[in-house]
Amino acid sequence: MFSKEIYISRRQKLSFLMSSCAPEGARGIALFLGNVDAPAQYKNNAYKFRQDSSWLYYFGLDEPRFAAIMDLDSGAETIFADDFDIDDIIWTGPMPSVASLAALSGVEQTAPYAALAAAVEAAKSAGRRVHFLPQARYYNERLIERMGLCEPSLDLIRAVVQMRLVKGPEEIELLDAVCDLGIRMHEIGRDAIAPGVVEQDIVGQMEGYSLAKGWGVSFATILTQHGEIFHNHSHAGKIQEGKLLVIDAGVESNEHYASDFTRTYPTGGRFTQKQRDIYSIVYECNEAAFSMIRPGMAYREVHLMTARKMLESLKALGLVKGDVDEMVAAGVAGLFMPHGLGHNMGLDVHDMEELGENYVGYDDDQKRSPQLGLGSLRMARRLRPGNVITDEPGIYFIPALIEKWKSEGTNAQFVNFSKLESYYDFGGIRLEDDVLVTPDGARRLGSRRLPIAPDDVEAAMAK
Amino acid sequence: MFSKEIYISRRQKLSFLMSSCAPEGARGIALFLGNVDAPAQYKNNAYKFRQDSSWLYYFGLDEPRFAAIMDLDSGAETIFADDFDIDDIIWTGPMPSVASLAALSGVEQTAPYAALAAAVEAAKSAGRRVHFLPQARYYNERLIERMGLCEPSLDLIRAVVQMRLVKGPEEIELLDAVCDLGIRMHEIGRDAIAPGVVEQDIVGQMEGYSLAKGWGVSFATILTQHGEIFHNHSHAGKIQEGKLLVIDAGVESNEHYASDFTRTYPTGGRFTQKQRDIYSIVYECNEAAFSMIRPGMAYREVHLMTARKMLESLKALGLVKGDVDEMVAAGVAGLFMPHGLGHNMGLDVHDMEELGENYVGYDDDQKRSPQLGLGSLRMARRLRPGNVITDEPGIYFIPALIEKWKSEGTNAQFVNFSKLESYYDFGGIRLEDDVLVTPDGARRLGSRRLPIAPDDVEAAMAK
Repeated sequence: MFSKEIYISRRQKLSFLMSSCAPEGARGIALFLGNVDAPAQYKNNAYKFRQDSSWLYYFGLDEPRFAAIMDLDSGAETIFADDFDIDDIIWTGPMPSVASLAALSGVEQTAPYAALAAAVEAAKSAGRRVHFLPQARYYNERLIERMGLCEPSLDLIRAVVQMRLVKGPEEIELLDAVCDLGIRMHEIGRDAIAPGVVEQDIVGQMEGYSLAKGWGVSFATILTQHGEIFHNHSHAGKIQEGKLLVIDAGVESNEHYASDFTRTYPTGGRFTQKQRDIYSIVYECNEAAFSMIRPGMAYREVHLMTARKMLESLKALGLVKGDVDEMVAAGVAGLFMPHGLGHNMGLDVHDMEELGENYVGYDDDQKRSPQLGLGSLRMARRLRPGNVITDEPGIYFIPALIEKWKSEGTNAQFVNFSKLESYYDFGGIRLEDDVLVTPDGARRLGSRRLPIAPDDVEAAMAK
Repeated sequence: MFSKEIYISRRQKLSFLMSSCAPEGARGIALFLGNVDAPAQYKNNAYKFRQDSSWLYYFGLDEPRFAAIMDLDSGAETIFADDFDIDDIIWTGPMPSVASLAALSGVEQTAPYAALAAAVEAAKSAGRRVHFLPQARYYNERLIERMGLCEPSLDLIRAVVQMRLVKGPEEIELLDAVCDLGIRMHEIGRDAIAPGVVEQDIVGQMEGYSLAKGWGVSFATILTQHGEIFHNHSHAGKIQEGKLLVIDAGVESNEHYASDFTRTYPTGGRFTQKQRDIYSIVYECNEAAFSMIRPGMAYREVHLMTARKMLESLKALGLVKGDVDEMVAAGVAGLFMPHGLGHNMGLDVHDMEELGENYVGYDDDQKRSPQLGLGSLRMARRLRPGNVITDEPGIYFIPALIEKWKSEGTNAQFVNFSKLESYYDFGGIRLEDDVLVTPDGARRLGSRRLPIAPDDVEAAMAK
């Protein structure tokens, strides 16, 4: 937890941002719900507790069953939670009081958790606005429903997004540290690659490290010899010689900041020429995107310029043909990279995804595209110092998607479908770094970089 | 997953048990809900999927967002789930259809997930009973509420408990296997104990193994130098010389069967005489309890006879005084062991806890005691072959509890409070094995036993 001054100043800024939405006396209250434990097998056998990220940002307290109300008119702040009773303390040992925990957030007033509903009801009855955020957890969704609250507050969403998008120095320090953990976790995975090894064995070694040094993984580890299948979470297969293994994995620190790196390895330690050709394109796209990242540049433009570079190289290989600018405009890159170039990262690995991608990654300046690939871009905004984004180009050969375009004649003038057939068993490649936008440009997070150039990858695997 | 014949025969037996509750035509339907993904950070960043255990028992399908209705009058069975569409398949790769998955359970009829509510409504409108189980997950609780269903079905709870309490040979094989994983995980933990090591480092190594070889841990690992604090999940401390480290941890297999072992280690590798004295009592209680386990014996009696043995030994040490039988009757053992001797184990580590402990561990033959310790006993029933239970006596010195008894004069004639003061920094000891009730008696699960005798523990730590 940071010092209480950090939380006080964040809440003051939030109050200030919200004050522009309505005149004094008509601002209402802002309701924040921390998480409760999420049952795995049964209610008392829960998953490892994960606090709500916006709660962590404004209040920091990493305990279940906390809530808070900020009165945006009077400035009063109240934390709602229950003290342990003597019977609990026999089982839990001495526990700090809610009042002493609230003081760590700089909140002076506390009340029992059960008083929350009445406090919300009182505000509603007085005709006051009740601002709240979209809820990630079903328990909190139901709590909101039971309070008779309907729509999350766009004003509150916009204010929270504006603040959380720009990371403060206290956050950047933690992001650097967790990226170092993520890099080390990736090395453990890379060093375990060998033909015959079961994928789950590698995943377990990696995730064990994340639990030893942090909260755990920041998302379900992707470790697959079918990189072209994006949502493949089965790890039952054995490593086979001659394949490409995509590892997309991150650590979440004990302070709940995320890292998110992707590397793609030749399972036998050396790329074939065909693999190296495609890998080199993705590598150059990753480097090119990074070199474009600077304040004022829209990340949508970085995505499009990266797509342009990718198509130029694919054209040189003979996989696409025609005018590159026309191909970019037609969205041909989406056939090979049907996802966006990157996303915001912070307390969530896709930062604030629950608040709505169109509020987080888009604004009045940048609108969502309907195109495959570009349409999946989670972060399109003009970059600002303090933004933390991922740079993760990829090239995939997805037989079902290629066949769909072929049969529907999509971009038939640009795509060399017959040549693509020899890539149906290629798989996919993605290369991802975590990047901080600085006043001058950008720097990659972490104190070192995971080997990424093809020769460096082979050298690292030969050790 | 087992062969479909297993699931068909389990559902036939369930139908048969339910048929005794009402005449044909008045039996109604039984509703089973599988789990959906549980969000961690945001909806699309979920915890590792964990299927509902009763769903696994009767249907086996380990995929999210499945449900089923058994018509207890007509015998019809329907699985409700959604097929992947072509857009999904681009991201997920080729996926089996719901019909082909349902066939693996031996269910022929399928319908979309959204048709579930209408099917329940049709049964309700026709005045039929809708049997369902208590739900562990908030999503499913809300689903049940939205269907206008009120009370879980006692008939269904009793039938499911009757079946799941007795493990079949196909389950025992998996329980033996996961106990071997659990034993190996404990060895990894034991071998990592050394003064100066951060507890979280040991936990990570252990849990990494559980993820490499199984689904993960079957419950949040307890690894603490404060064994007297039962619900201590902080692992920030460093191992200190001269302490006792309680490790209570289990693996859940990829097939979702649980193991659950506890050992207590001297952090420096050798017990002090004071530690060895208490450890030896707990060890002898573990052995004595095991020797009493056999069909027909109530586990409540095993608990009480173990408490008796514990009090005899504590009396020899001078910590309690007076007539042992009177002490047992007065519940003096609860001061030292305020929990029960053990619980059922299977697909859940506390098997079927969500169905209600009083239905799972108690019956008309055995009623719950209000006493500290005995009152926390989760399994009191008369044992039957195929029951799987834990044998986990412990002795703890809980200053807050001792002080409470002392100040309230509880059992003051039996407890030597002044002598107990020198144990306030002792901590606690628990020793737990997983036991199968056999036709002749009992055997410990797993192909070998974790070292437990004090000399064997010291020898294992010296390696």
